[in-house]
This record gives sequence, C-alpha cells and structure tokens, in this order.
Amino acid sequence: VSPTRSLSLRDLADAIGASLIGDADRVVDRVEEPADATAGALTFVSNPRRSKDIFSTKAEAVIADFDFAAEQAHEVPCAVLACENRYLAFAQALQLLYGTLDKEPVVDERAAVSSDACLGERVSVGPFAVVGKAVIGDDSKVGAHVFIDDDVVIGERCVLQPGVVLLHGTRLGDDIYVNPGAVLGGEGFGFAPDGDLNIKVPQVGGVVVDNHVDIGANVCLDRGAVSDTVIGEGTKIDNLVQVGHGVKVGDHAVLIAQVGIGGDTVVGDHALLAGQVGVVHNVTIGRGARIGAQSGITRDVPEQAAWSGYPAYPHAQWLKTSVHNRHLDDKLKKLTRIEREHKARIEQLEAELAALRDLVRGGREEP
Amino acid sequence: VSPTRSLSLRDLADAIGASLIGDADRVVDRVEEPADATAGALTFVSNPRRSKDIFSTKAEAVIADFDFAAEQAHEVPCAVLACENRYLAFAQALQLLYGTLDKEPVVDERAAVSSDACLGERVSVGPFAVVGKAVIGDDSKVGAHVFIDDDVVIGERCVLQPGVVLLHGTRLGDDIYVNPGAVLGGEGFGFAPDGDLNIKVPQVGGVVVDNHVDIGANVCLDRGAVSDTVIGEGTKIDNLVQVGHGVKVGDHAVLIAQVGIGGDTVVGDHALLAGQVGVVHNVTIGRGARIGAQSGITRDVPEQAAWSGYPAYPHAQWLKTSVHNRHLDDKLKKLTRIEREHKARIEQLEAELAALRDLVRGGREEP
Amino acid sequence: VSPTRSLSLRDLADAIGASLIGDADRVVDRVEEPADATAGALTFVSNPRRSKDIFSTKAEAVIADFDFAAEQAHEVPCAVLACENRYLAFAQALQLLYGTLDKEPVVDERAAVSSDACLGERVSVGPFAVVGKAVIGDDSKVGAHVFIDDDVVIGERCVLQPGVVLLHGTRLGDDIYVNPGAVLGGEGFGFAPDGDLNIKVPQVGGVVVDNHVDIGANVCLDRGAVSDTVIGEGTKIDNLVQVGHGVKVGDHAVLIAQVGIGGDTVVGDHALLAGQVGVVHNVTIGRGARIGAQSGITRDVPEQAAWSGYPAYPHAQWLKTSVHNRHLDDKLKKLTRIEREHKARIEQLEAELAALRDLVRGGREEP
Repeated sequence: VSPTRSLSLRDLADAIGASLIGDADRVVDRVEEPADATAGALTFVSNPRRSKDIFSTKAEAVIADFDFAAEQAHEVPCAVLACENRYLAFAQALQLLYGTLDKEPVVDERAAVSSDACLGERVSVGPFAVVGKAVIGDDSKVGAHVFIDDDVVIGERCVLQPGVVLLHGTRLGDDIYVNPGAVLGGEGFGFAPDGDLNIKVPQVGGVVVDNHVDIGANVCLDRGAVSDTVIGEGTKIDNLVQVGHGVKVGDHAVLIAQVGIGGDTVVGDHALLAGQVGVVHNVTIGRGARIGAQSGITRDVPEQAAWSGYPAYPHAQWLKTSVHNRHLDDKLKKLTRIEREHKARIEQLEAELAALRDLVRGGREEP
Repeated sequence: VSPTRSLSLRDLADAIGASLIGDADRVVDRVEEPADATAGALTFVSNPRRSKDIFSTKAEAVIADFDFAAEQAHEVPCAVLACENRYLAFAQALQLLYGTLDKEPVVDERAAVSSDACLGERVSVGPFAVVGKAVIGDDSKVGAHVFIDDDVVIGERCVLQPGVVLLHGTRLGDDIYVNPGAVLGGEGFGFAPDGDLNIKVPQVGGVVVDNHVDIGANVCLDRGAVSDTVIGEGTKIDNLVQVGHGVKVGDHAVLIAQVGIGGDTVVGDHALLAGQVGVVHNVTIGRGARIGAQSGITRDVPEQAAWSGYPAYPHAQWLKTSVHNRHLDDKLKKLTRIEREHKARIEQLEAELAALRDLVRGGREEP
Repeated sequence: VSPTRSLSLRDLADAIGASLIGDADRVVDRVEEPADATAGALTFVSNPRRSKDIFSTKAEAVIADFDFAAEQAHEVPCAVLACENRYLAFAQALQLLYGTLDKEPVVDERAAVSSDACLGERVSVGPFAVVGKAVIGDDSKVGAHVFIDDDVVIGERCVLQPGVVLLHGTRLGDDIYVNPGAVLGGEGFGFAPDGDLNIKVPQVGGVVVDNHVDIGANVCLDRGAVSDTVIGEGTKIDNLVQVGHGVKVGDHAVLIAQVGIGGDTVVGDHALLAGQVGVVHNVTIGRGARIGAQSGITRDVPEQAAWSGYPAYPHAQWLKTSVHNRHLDDKLKKLTRIEREHKARIEQLEAELAALRDLVRGGREEP
C-alpha cells in the first residue's frame, strides 16, 4: 500500500500529541517493521517478541509509550515519539501518512442507479453497482458491484466495499465501513415445523447499524423476524461472523472472526466475543463480558464476566479444568493406582487383625 | 420491511385456520412485538421470556395455541387467534400481510444473457447478472450480479438473491431460495499427494439441489469429485455453511449456521446439525439424528441418535461429562483429599496394630 | 460436468504412466463411480467402504495401485491401470478427460478495464469485471464480476472465479486459482483502544500469494497491518477460511475449511490445519505440524508435532483424555464408590482394632 504524505517529526509529534526525543527536522513518509525499516521510515513496537529489533532499526523514528521512552530511549538508534497510548498514536500516524487523497467523487456511468434513489452531496458509486429506491448520505462511497435494495437508508461518510449486499429494510448510520462480500438483511433462518416439514416464516424485521461500526468481509447480518437486528455504535465485527435474526448487539462490542450468534440473543455494550465463539438463540451476554475463543454460550452471561468452554462457565474455573484435562490420563491413573495400594493395605490389615484376634482369643482360651 | 396488505380478523382467521376470540371486524395490517405493538398490529408470543408483555400489549390481536387461549385469553387485552400450531399460523399470517406484490417480471437490459440461454415464462433477471448456456424455469427470479455458468439448470419459482454464483454442473429443482453470496459448484478440495506437493484432482461432479431447499448467505456447496454433491428436498441450510465434494444430504435436514461437512459424507433425512458442527469426510449421520452445537463428528452416527461433543458421543452422556468437567478441579481435589485421609488412617491403623501385636506377643512371652 | 476428450486405454496408460492389464484398444471418455459406471467409463476406488462395488462394476477400466493389481486384478470385471500413486494417476486422467478446451481468450466489452491496466497476452476478462491500474500476466482468466483494485499484480495462468475481490496491495504469483467470493486484501481487524472506544488502525500492508496456491470460495485473506500477509508456494486453502493481518503461511501448507488464523501468526511449511481449527494471533506453528479438527492453538507448536484439543496439546495425549472424557461419569462414580468402600472398611478396622485392644487390655488387667 502506498503512503500519500510525508511529515517532519516536529509536525508528526504535534499531530499525534507525542513528546519528541531526537531531531525534529527529520522527515518520515511511510511505516515499516523495525527489522525492515530504512531511512525515512517510521516504526512501532507492536509485537513484544520482535521488540529487540528496535535496538538496531534503521528507521527514522519509533513510536513508544512513556515508560519505554524513560527507560530505553537512549538505547534506540533513532528518534523516539513518546506517547500515553502508543497504539492510538500509531493509528493516528498511519492515518496521516496513508490517508486517502480525496478523489473527485463520481457516480460511475456504468452503475444502475434508480431514478428513485436519493443521493447526498459528494456520493461516489462504482461501476456495476445497483442502487434501488434508497437514501445515501453525504460523502458516502459505494463500491463496484455493491447491491443496494429498495428501502435502504445509508448515512454520511459510509464506505461500502465491492460486492457488499444491503437488502431492503437495512438502515446504516454514519461513518460505517463494510468490507467486501458482507450481506446485510439476508433472510433469517426461521422455519415453522409442520409435521415433518419446515415452513418458512417470512422475516419482516430489518437490520439497523449505528454510527462508527466496522463490518468484516463476508459477514452475514440477518434481517429480524419481527423486530430489527441491531448493531450498536462503535461495534467492530470481524470477517465471516454470523449474526442471526433479531440479535441486539450493544455499543462498542467486539465480535472476532467466525463468531456465530443465534436469533434474538442480546450482546451487551463493550462485550468481547473471541474468535469462533458460538452463542445460542435467546440468551443475554452482559455488558462488558469477555468470552474466550471457541466457547459455546448456552445461557445468560453476567455483566463483566469472563467465561470460556462449552457449555461456557467462568474462565478461571475453565482454566483449571483445562489443565486437568490435559493430564487427565495421568491423574486418573494415579488415583486408580493409589486406590489399589489402599486396597492392598486394607486387606493386609484385615488379615493381620484377624490373625492377631485369633492369637488373642487362642491365648485367652488356652489358659 | 413494509407490509403489503391488510385483513380483517375474520378473513385472517379463515385464511390461517384459527378460532377467533374477539371482534371479527377489526383490521390488522402489520406484525409487531407485543411490547412495541400499536393499533392495527398483529402480534405473537415467540419468546417465552417476553411473554408477560402480551398482557399489556396494544396490538389488535395475538396468535396463540389452544392451550394458551383456553387458559389466558380472558387476561389478554386484545383478540386471540387460537391455533393448533401457532408457529405455522404465524408464518401464514406473515405471508398474507407481507407477501410481495408481483412486479412485472423483466429481464434487465444490463444483464448479460447468453443467446444460448433458455428462459421460461415470467423469468426476471437483474442488472449485471450473467446467464450462460443455462435453462431457467418459469417464474424464477435471478438477482443482480448473479453468475449462472454454462451447463446449469434451474427449476421453477426459484429465487437467486444478488451475487449468487452457480458454476457449471449445478442443477436446482423448484422453489429453491438462495441468499446472497452463496457459491454452488466451487472446486472441491481435492489434492493428490505427489511427494511433498499436492496435485489438484479435477472435480467433475456437479451440485444437485432438490425442491423447496433454502440456502443461506455466503454458503459454499462444492461440486462433487466424481459423483454429484446432493441436497435433498426441503432441506434448510443456514448462513456460512460449508458442504464438501460429494456430500449427500437427505430430505428435510437442517444445517445451522457455520456447519462444515467433509467430502463424501452422508447426512440422513430429517437430521439436524446445530451451529458450528464439524463432520469429517466419509461418515454417515443417520436419519433423524440430532447433533449438538460445535460438536465434531468423527464416525457414523446411528439413526435418531442425539450426539454431542468432540469426538461426539451420545448427548446424555456428554451432558454428564460437561457437568463433571465444569467442576473437575473440585472433584479431583476432593478425591485427592479423601485419599490423603485414607492414607493417614491406614498408617495409623498399621501403627496401632503393630503396637497391639507387640503388646499381645509381649504379654504372651512374659508369663 | 461434461468431459471433453476420449482416449484408448493404451494412450491413457502411457499418459499417466500406468501398467495396463486388459484390452488396450478399449476407449474411455468419462469418469464414474464403480457402482454407477457404464460402458465407456473409467473408474477409481477412492472410498474403501465402497470398494466392493469394483468387483461388479460395468466400467471399462479402473485405476488402482500395484498392490491391488497384484492381488485382485483377476477378480475385477474390467481392465486395470496399475500405478505407483493411484491418486496422482487419477488426477492426471481427469485432467486428460475433462481438461477445458481452450476458448479464444477475450476481454468482454462489458468489463470495466482501466486504461491504466496492463494486460498480458491471451488474458480473458469476463462481463462486468472491474480492472483498475493493475498488471495481469499472460494466460490469466478474470471471471465475471471480479473486482481488481488499483495497485494489484497478478501473475501468469491465474484463474479468478466470479465475484473474487482483490484490493490494492495484493500480489499474486503464477498458476493461482481463486474460487468465487474470496476476498484478498480486506481491512485487517486492527483497532487501538482509546478509553472505551476502539480507533481503527489503518492497515497498510498487502497480501502476497506465491505460485501454485489454491484459494477456496468465500475465503478472507486480510491485508497486513504493516508487513504483508503472505501465503507460500503450493499452499491449499479450503472454503470459508479466515487469515488475519500479517499472517505468514509457509509453502505447501494445507488449511481445511473454516479455519481461522489470528494476526501475525506464522504457519510453517507443510503444516496441516484440519477443519474449523482456530489459532490465536502471534504464535508459530512449526513446519510439518498437524493440527486436529476444531482445535484451538494458543501457543507455539513444535515442528512435525501432531496437536489437538483446546487449548491444544499433543494429539496422543488428547486421544487418551477424549476416551476418559467420554466415560468421565463412570470413572468418577467408580472412584467415589471405591472410596466409600475403603472408608467403610477402614472404619470397620478401626472399630475392630479398638475392640481387640480393649480385649487385650482387659485380659491383661484381669488376671
């Protein structure tokens, strides 16, 4: 990916709110890993395992936190930009160096835009996109091959990457980014049993996504059965996630790749579901709860709880079980061996006691 | 989603075969949740946790089963439509109120339809769809951006949502609904080992889907290696499901979201695989079997069996293991503690017995 | 799928390096399963469970290994093509019989190809494909609805099936096959915590795929955060796999369906991850390691190791745990029962010993 701007360290430090240790006139124009960096590069220590590379980097400057700067700035062969939150500062630096140069927004003449569509200012629409009777807010970008059905509303500054599908009843807020292949508003999986058959229950709810949500590639957000499927503000959804009909995900939640959530379930604000977690329908995951990877949630999870396993239970308890599980053969064998020993000693005692009793009785009868 | 019709309760009760308790002249024109409903709405109790809302709903009428009607109709502040199967009745009511108004079917002039394609009566084709040398039955709807390869056959009344891909050798029956982004006929994962390399084995089977099947968004049904991949009549496949080459799924089976099935495996009629289940290649899941969420099937499952876990085994046994697993640390600690106690008592006994034996022997020798 | 050529058994045996037992003048023109085969068909024993069908097949010839040929050729009612590696020979036979007849490569006039695009010799581009400022090597095929962004490089003889999305910074080598709906270069899942919020970290790495890689349908390969996401030569990726930002997969690795790999993780050459495996970010799976289906990898895996479970550990140990787990209720009940017995016997011994001691003491005091 090509960078789009260059900045002096002075300007960069100002922009990201960092304290600069080093030559303020040096210029950076791209980001590289510590080990690969060359002159003109900005770098960053993201992976602690690779952090030793920073002491021999050829980068111009490194973003670090105050602790690192205080202790190790003198050992680093480049300028140091010391910050409170190095992740945030790095994100801001990337936005500065790689931010897209605004292209002139254009509605491609090969797009099929309905005459009933209502497009805001500076909306761009890519080739072969289809836009039905929909509303699209200012500065939103509709990629190539995107399908926007009738009865869809899209806010401002949204980005729909190529191949995204928004079916009728979908409502997007502002500043939403949707990666390629995501499907919003697909039929929920609703079937009524009729003897041996399954009759489809029409799904008449929509999909409502609040501001600042990110949606990964090939994600599926089903429409609601009756009430809408809802994704709260600032929530981040990774690739290949499945969200069933009528699910309510709160604000600032995080759903890592390949998570699956059953119909009508509620996921609280700030909850985090790690990769490949499955959740049954109709349960509630409390605000701030953290669910371990691959766990299966079968009942309500309390607020702020950390749960793991399938069926899931508190993470600390699960960790103990995991350790036992790994050594279960040894543990059970040891228990069995000890019991065999006990049995032998008990039998020995029984025999000796009987012998002694005989001896005592014999002795008493004898005289 | 906007409703398309309104009905008096009299007509609705007739149409869905319900007994009406209440004013037959009232009219409903949409469906809403009990708590949200306003005048003119029909409602339904789907989630037992929220059922208390029905006693204060502002809906016009509620669909309920006979038991509920007999016991609680007098407590409900609206008309009651009492039915044998409330799910089925609700599905029918939704179809009546929200059924699509038939648009004039049209082959969009921006679609690329081969001159060798054979389209039935009233077939619609969306913008930018591609149709090769294929046969499409009467009343089928091909969405925007759909790709239909050469050598594809589609029956009557099928719906292909935007972005669906049907590769050569795909055969669809009648009344099949395919959600956006589903891929039918992708290359099966077949590679022949050649030393350290993997040589691709051409996959020459097709994909055959019987009538009344529903296929979720971004589902992948691979083509067969030699014999076809087959999905039986009435089977329902949820989003993001993977079906490997040559798999045979029976009639009226249910595959919940993110299930993955390995090549050449057989899934019997009416089998149900819950979310995120994985199945290895080349096994048979018996008719009517029910597999618990996230389970891993590694061998044949008998008919009508309920299995869970990985590797999976009977569900009742798995439930017991699950309970133990959660408390494994406590259980093993308790066992270890008891053994320590036993050991101490055995040693005490051994010492006391030895002392007593000495006493007895001493006593006997003394005199 | 329709075959494209017919061959005499003489020519077929020559082409695939097989020893022919039977009439060299017979002709085959397609492949069928042993049980379904009719005159003119070539067959193959892939599934040992169905191998009995070979003894009554109506096929013209069967591909088998030398051992089978030596022992059972006389029992098979058709010609036998005996080979060292029957899988490889079968793959070659399929390529001969079903190989695509080269169509005249054409850039469809309905494709949107940028005037800045650089297309090699004999490149074909399907209808409604979008090609930006990209380089495409000789003999590559771009399917319908494919999106190729600016700043993409594609080698020779690549096949991009319909609906594939390649975003900027993607580099494909030669002979790469990408199934429909795969997304290469989607935004990695990178967010910097800022108080309660998650700020997006721009992902500026690309996706680099080496020669002879196969990529399944609806796969997601995220772009790198800083350094590229890399897939090594000859690696095979099944459907619905998720590969996070900056992951480095080695050469000739195999990722079965629905695998998910967290950011910056390293997967060694020849490693095999079975279906639905999850791997956390920032770990290393050693060269040649084999990970069992549905396992969760939370730490480094040594080279050549076979691991299973979650958290994963050596497979042999996991197998023992699995067996215990299945019977955990019985085992724990048995242990508890034995302990109850031991306790009863210990108490009995204590009582008897006390009684005997009294007897002895009484006896000693009496006289």
